[in-house]
Amino acid sequence: MERIKPRTLSGFMELLPDKQIQFERMTEILRKTYASYGFAPLDTPVIEDAQILLAKGGGETEKQIYRFTKGDSDLALRFDLTVPLAKYVALHYNDLAFPFRRFQISKVYRGERAQRGRFREFYQADIDIIGDGKLDILNEAEIPAIIYKVFRGFGLSRFQIRVNNRKILNGFYAMQGLTEQSGDIMRTVDKLDKIGAEKVKVLLTEDCGLSEAQADEILKFIAITGTNAQVLEALECYTGRDEIFDLGLNELKAVTSNLAAFGVPEANFAVDLTIARGLDYYTGTVYETTLLDHPEIGSVCSGGRYDNLAGYYIDKPLPGVGISIGLTRLFYVLDEQKLLNPELPGAPADALVLPMTAEAAPAIALAEQLRSAGLRVQLYGEQKKFKQKMAYADKLGVPFAVLLGEDEIAEGKCSVKNMKTGEQVKLAPAEAAAHILEALTAGNVPVILEK
Amino acid sequence: MERIKPRTLSGFMELLPDKQIQFERMTEILRKTYASYGFAPLDTPVIEDAQILLAKGGGETEKQIYRFTKGDSDLALRFDLTVPLAKYVALHYNDLAFPFRRFQISKVYRGERAQRGRFREFYQADIDIIGDGKLDILNEAEIPAIIYKVFRGFGLSRFQIRVNNRKILNGFYAMQGLTEQSGDIMRTVDKLDKIGAEKVKVLLTEDCGLSEAQADEILKFIAITGTNAQVLEALECYTGRDEIFDLGLNELKAVTSNLAAFGVPEANFAVDLTIARGLDYYTGTVYETTLLDHPEIGSVCSGGRYDNLAGYYIDKPLPGVGISIGLTRLFYVLDEQKLLNPELPGAPADALVLPMTAEAAPAIALAEQLRSAGLRVQLYGEQKKFKQKMAYADKLGVPFAVLLGEDEIAEGKCSVKNMKTGEQVKLAPAEAAAHILEALTAGNVPVILEK
Repeated sequence: MERIKPRTLSGFMELLPDKQIQFERMTEILRKTYASYGFAPLDTPVIEDAQILLAKGGGETEKQIYRFTKGDSDLALRFDLTVPLAKYVALHYNDLAFPFRRFQISKVYRGERAQRGRFREFYQADIDIIGDGKLDILNEAEIPAIIYKVFRGFGLSRFQIRVNNRKILNGFYAMQGLTEQSGDIMRTVDKLDKIGAEKVKVLLTEDCGLSEAQADEILKFIAITGTNAQVLEALECYTGRDEIFDLGLNELKAVTSNLAAFGVPEANFAVDLTIARGLDYYTGTVYETTLLDHPEIGSVCSGGRYDNLAGYYIDKPLPGVGISIGLTRLFYVLDEQKLLNPELPGAPADALVLPMTAEAAPAIALAEQLRSAGLRVQLYGEQKKFKQKMAYADKLGVPFAVLLGEDEIAEGKCSVKNMKTGEQVKLAPAEAAAHILEALTAGNVPVILEK
Repeated sequence: MERIKPRTLSGFMELLPDKQIQFERMTEILRKTYASYGFAPLDTPVIEDAQILLAKGGGETEKQIYRFTKGDSDLALRFDLTVPLAKYVALHYNDLAFPFRRFQISKVYRGERAQRGRFREFYQADIDIIGDGKLDILNEAEIPAIIYKVFRGFGLSRFQIRVNNRKILNGFYAMQGLTEQSGDIMRTVDKLDKIGAEKVKVLLTEDCGLSEAQADEILKFIAITGTNAQVLEALECYTGRDEIFDLGLNELKAVTSNLAAFGVPEANFAVDLTIARGLDYYTGTVYETTLLDHPEIGSVCSGGRYDNLAGYYIDKPLPGVGISIGLTRLFYVLDEQKLLNPELPGAPADALVLPMTAEAAPAIALAEQLRSAGLRVQLYGEQKKFKQKMAYADKLGVPFAVLLGEDEIAEGKCSVKNMKTGEQVKLAPAEAAAHILEALTAGNVPVILEK
């Protein structure tokens, strides 16, 4: 037979079973957390009509998109989950209850130039809350609580949700007579973390055409730091000069004031005036999330408030707020930097049942009994030597092997071997299940390690 | 703004939230059941190198496949989960422990002519067990147990797993001197359920070129029915004449003899000599599953034993056994035929917390407390009239609304309203959580209704 060398396309993550199990643990935490806040799961097609997907059109998106024809159809693979959401909400407008809260954890496709750590197929884990005409600020206040729960769920405590409000920035720029340049200025200020204040000033004066004094005013503004209370107090000095600014400050106060009720500690939340988010369509609160010990990873969860989700498809103002986690990239970076907990279970089963007799029925029944108790159990059916069976258990990484030989069957027991400690005990099936379950509960470890 | 009419491509299932939640319930049951038997989750790319995906080549597959170029790359979307599995196992051969057990619940793509109930994007829910060189018959015996658990998990009892063995068929045809025609004969016999014995006989004589006597012999053979013991006994009469037949009968006996140990009742299992499965690559046990009250749906879970998973990619014999559930089609048919349980929860939250005061903090804290107790809770933040708030709760279909006004706050309680019965009780937060949880546990209803 002529053979073709198997390969997986570059830029496509394909994990070995142990890593996949760890990845699934992360998606499970996300699903549970999102669902606990009343978000409905959504699953839109990977393929959409290209015209619809590209309604907004233009730019990098069009170059990166996977687009092709099938018969007469002009098709494309989704490049994010927001455009399909906009289509979905516009299409099913009459059937949805607003505010409409949905989460989607799905793959998106971008045919970027392949490079290390860049993916052409990757998971996004998004939530959005969409209002019909209006959407209360309380929804924007709730988002940090959800981000907090997600990263706590991953086992982290040293992370920070950084929040700003685009209205504060827009209002501030209006005060300085810089409304027209505000987009350019925000994109420049967004680089502060990477290039520092001095270079930002150079760009502001040279590229954005600001005077020295205007640039200084902006740098002074974004240098406002301290506790949330201190930053909010410093912002009070600017009130009364621009309506949009005042509105933004009130929104920021509303978001900040309810943090305690939402159970988000001050340490995990910071008002940060340098956050703007590159996308032009954010209009209110904006969010970024950084791992405090790994600022180099950048924001691991970002989003914000927007005023018009689906203007390309429907004549209804649909304001919303949403966040997105680039899950594939996050997992890749965590793995690369050895931040995934090595104690995190990666085995496909909690126990491997090894029949030591010719007759399989007792081992089958035992395996079923352990499953009924809630365990993931693999029955090993191959005719191999004992040593090979144990080598298999080792390679799988199962925490327990359960041996069933003549003696055990005669006693109505089984031998439970802890693969890590080597400890072996003879127990009745129900005791064996309890013994294993107890050890597993103790092993309910965080996904991400904090050093 | 110029608008584009939103639409979803025909042949692509896009569900409303309540249906999506029901669909997810089915995938969750599948994931849990598959995992409980020690299968590892796998997630291969949707896009593969077209040459690799089409290594086997030819036929319908090639016409239906979504194939396109991006830059210099000849790409295609997977049309099943078996070819990507073969690629995966060949590519990662050295890193895997054999037997390798994986499940994958993912979308596949076939650009078929669109028609009612036919999908171009659909979920398959597959399990496979792959051996390295050898694979014990015990794995084939375990498959019916997994199918049984899945459909019991869906809430069904009236279904039947029908099992045959290709070696028995091949051996039988060899006895009749019909080895060369056996493929054609099996494909013809496979139509028995649809067209009846008489027409099968006509096809056997006219299309397959069998003599009248040969056709009669075959019809007599496939007419062997009765209990599993009766069928196995009838097959004993044919032993000693063909090695392959005898091997197949022994395998079938091994599969059948362990059913009781696996906990599969006789009523849900039948040896059925008419089952052959269309695909030529099955070599041993083959499975089909039918809903007894809905034979018109056809097989809802099929598969079998094969000898060579990845011959196109690697010079190693990799025998395996696997089954597949066409989940999207199954869900569509169940919904169409009103077999989905109307009691099945479709709401995105267990409780909707309605703040009745200007101050949001108490309602926020209450919602967080209910979440800590394990509930899915949506906080309603919009400034609307009471009637509109209750209309929203109704439209969402949440089982409970939790009202928090001045009185409740003063008493440290909240009003829990059962949206179905209208009953309303004032409870402390912990009691409220327990009250709601109890009602939900009672609502742990089957997915599929049996009438």
